[in-house]
Amino acid sequence: MTVDREVGASAGTAHAARLDRAAALACAHGLDGLMVGVGSDLRYLTGYAALPLERLTMLVVACGRRPALIVPRLEVAAARAGLRAEVPIESWDEVDDPHALALAQLDPARLASRPRLAVSDQLWAFHLLRFQAQLATATPTFVALSPVLRELRMIKDAGEITLLRRAAHAADRVVTALAAGRLVGRTEGDVAREVRERLVAEGHDDARFAIVASGPNSASPHHEASDREIRAGEPIVLDIGGTIGGYGSDITRTLWVTGGDGANGPDDRYRELYASLQHAQHAATAAVRPGVACEGIDGVARRAIAADGYGDSFIHRTGHGIGLDGHEDPYLVAGNSEPLREGMAFSVEPGIYFEGEYGARIEDIVVCGEAGPIVLNEAPRDLLVVDG
Amino acid sequence: MTVDREVGASAGTAHAARLDRAAALACAHGLDGLMVGVGSDLRYLTGYAALPLERLTMLVVACGRRPALIVPRLEVAAARAGLRAEVPIESWDEVDDPHALALAQLDPARLASRPRLAVSDQLWAFHLLRFQAQLATATPTFVALSPVLRELRMIKDAGEITLLRRAAHAADRVVTALAAGRLVGRTEGDVAREVRERLVAEGHDDARFAIVASGPNSASPHHEASDREIRAGEPIVLDIGGTIGGYGSDITRTLWVTGGDGANGPDDRYRELYASLQHAQHAATAAVRPGVACEGIDGVARRAIAADGYGDSFIHRTGHGIGLDGHEDPYLVAGNSEPLREGMAFSVEPGIYFEGEYGARIEDIVVCGEAGPIVLNEAPRDLLVVDG
Repeated sequence: MTVDREVGASAGTAHAARLDRAAALACAHGLDGLMVGVGSDLRYLTGYAALPLERLTMLVVACGRRPALIVPRLEVAAARAGLRAEVPIESWDEVDDPHALALAQLDPARLASRPRLAVSDQLWAFHLLRFQAQLATATPTFVALSPVLRELRMIKDAGEITLLRRAAHAADRVVTALAAGRLVGRTEGDVAREVRERLVAEGHDDARFAIVASGPNSASPHHEASDREIRAGEPIVLDIGGTIGGYGSDITRTLWVTGGDGANGPDDRYRELYASLQHAQHAATAAVRPGVACEGIDGVARRAIAADGYGDSFIHRTGHGIGLDGHEDPYLVAGNSEPLREGMAFSVEPGIYFEGEYGARIEDIVVCGEAGPIVLNEAPRDLLVVDG
Repeated sequence: MTVDREVGASAGTAHAARLDRAAALACAHGLDGLMVGVGSDLRYLTGYAALPLERLTMLVVACGRRPALIVPRLEVAAARAGLRAEVPIESWDEVDDPHALALAQLDPARLASRPRLAVSDQLWAFHLLRFQAQLATATPTFVALSPVLRELRMIKDAGEITLLRRAAHAADRVVTALAAGRLVGRTEGDVAREVRERLVAEGHDDARFAIVASGPNSASPHHEASDREIRAGEPIVLDIGGTIGGYGSDITRTLWVTGGDGANGPDDRYRELYASLQHAQHAATAAVRPGVACEGIDGVARRAIAADGYGDSFIHRTGHGIGLDGHEDPYLVAGNSEPLREGMAFSVEPGIYFEGEYGARIEDIVVCGEAGPIVLNEAPRDLLVVDG
């Protein structure tokens, strides 16, 4: 909480400016309304981190009109406390129709005939279906909000980068502490609990995820920490993150635990795959600069890994944007020709996986700087061979 | 994790039976497909608690066809580990079209002309818009899944009630510990951190929320714990919950902290509002039995509070269902004529709020038993006047 306020000395003006820019984007895209539900878009535009529950909370932004925030009556005080910009609140009681109230914030003439409305990507389908039903006779067009709002959200300002850096450094400390502690003989789930505790202890407001993937599980990129016991002589992929002031950390480091016996070190095949991975991750990061296409960064990592013969074992994209969402635009993936711009923040995280055997991944959060990459994570990227 | 497995000795057959019943409901409702995204519906039907991320994971259930699970390639191993029923997995690569893959699981003849499809309520609007665009020429009808699936999910089986009871008792212990500890001079946020730690320490897999609303904040039902310092001579509304095996706890108790000085006890007005509230909460709970309408339970609480002159200060519904979602059907709210049935589980939580001054709420989780209410929470419901 403290951090949010500290960085946000000018947050009030920042959010007001974002709202103005969103309204301008609505005009520019020929949209009659931006319907922003609970989640990161709402928080980005207003500062309000509404509870992700079933009652409709919705910011309505329209070209040339004053924005309004629809709030269930019992959350009016919470909304007032959470807002970082002046937005009039329209509240609804339990027996009211909140969808009609949201639509009532728009120009009735435009709503009556073929209105074009954007809805936040993460809005529940339940709400979209209600809007579509209420507007059925007007034959509306609904589109996703992200292609509109990404123009704002993809480019991080100094305050946002400060939060991303703090989160990254906090996560660095957690990985370093984990690598120095006992791991062999514990379950993945037990280590995941320690990860979550340490993420908060190091300054995160919340722990968001804790992938602890040991032995053969390290070949499963999104493995859920299980009750498998960690053994000496195997790798552990740690992929962890939390949030500070809403902004995420997301780091992956790969350990090999020996149990204190040098004979349990990584085999040559693993060392080779790791060397290939580390080279690819470094090359992809080094390629970051304004103007390079997102798919270009993915291509650098993919070609490097393929050149070493592991192409079929790199089964996911190279990275994702990060901010108020853990995954957001821009995505570093084949087919995404979006050019990098200064201020974009994203992960660079190739991986190599041998199903049923083992795998490895290295991930940093990187900001595209004016002249090249600004790497936020500082924890060493070498294979961490530890006693565990 | 352990609890989940323990209770789920027959979980494999339970999930297979649920899938069969869902397919039968699709037939009965004339639906060509149930499109179940990430979240509680997916977990209910298959056991798989998929990560709530942007890549499409989707269970497709159709009348008379074998269900299929669409999974991004990097999560295939995680899905296999999470599934508690035999469901064939169809995986997609980063450059594939997952929405087309999901639609390909349905009968092409039915898809071609006016298909009727249900989507899970919490599916991201982004995905629904993709489906609508791909089917545009077939003029599809999309409906929400909850009116279909609630027939299953509202009625809890013995294993589900066991988990709800365990979660309730764990939350009881947290409230009791909080009431016995130091509170005065600490911030709400600090107490909320303690709540989250204790929820996990008492056996929850995760802490879901921790409302700590002190002094005037106690009049804000969904107050977010702030850096306000708790003072002697004021109330604190604690509304907290976590999950065990996916099933939620949700308890509210109201404390009054004196700081050890009897002169700082509750004023007469507060004692009177609390007595009214406690009477209403008790009466509403006592009215629970099969056949009584949901709105009837709400009415009992509302009439009792109104009779004492506080009608305008009870600004929310009386309760919500609880299970794999923290809020789910049935809702105890005016206008909901749904009759209670044996096995339904829900909160009973009236509140009285004086804006800018103070408020109070009492909440239990109640199961509708064959002959009346089964109250899962056991922590005392009296106003807890403590030193703090």
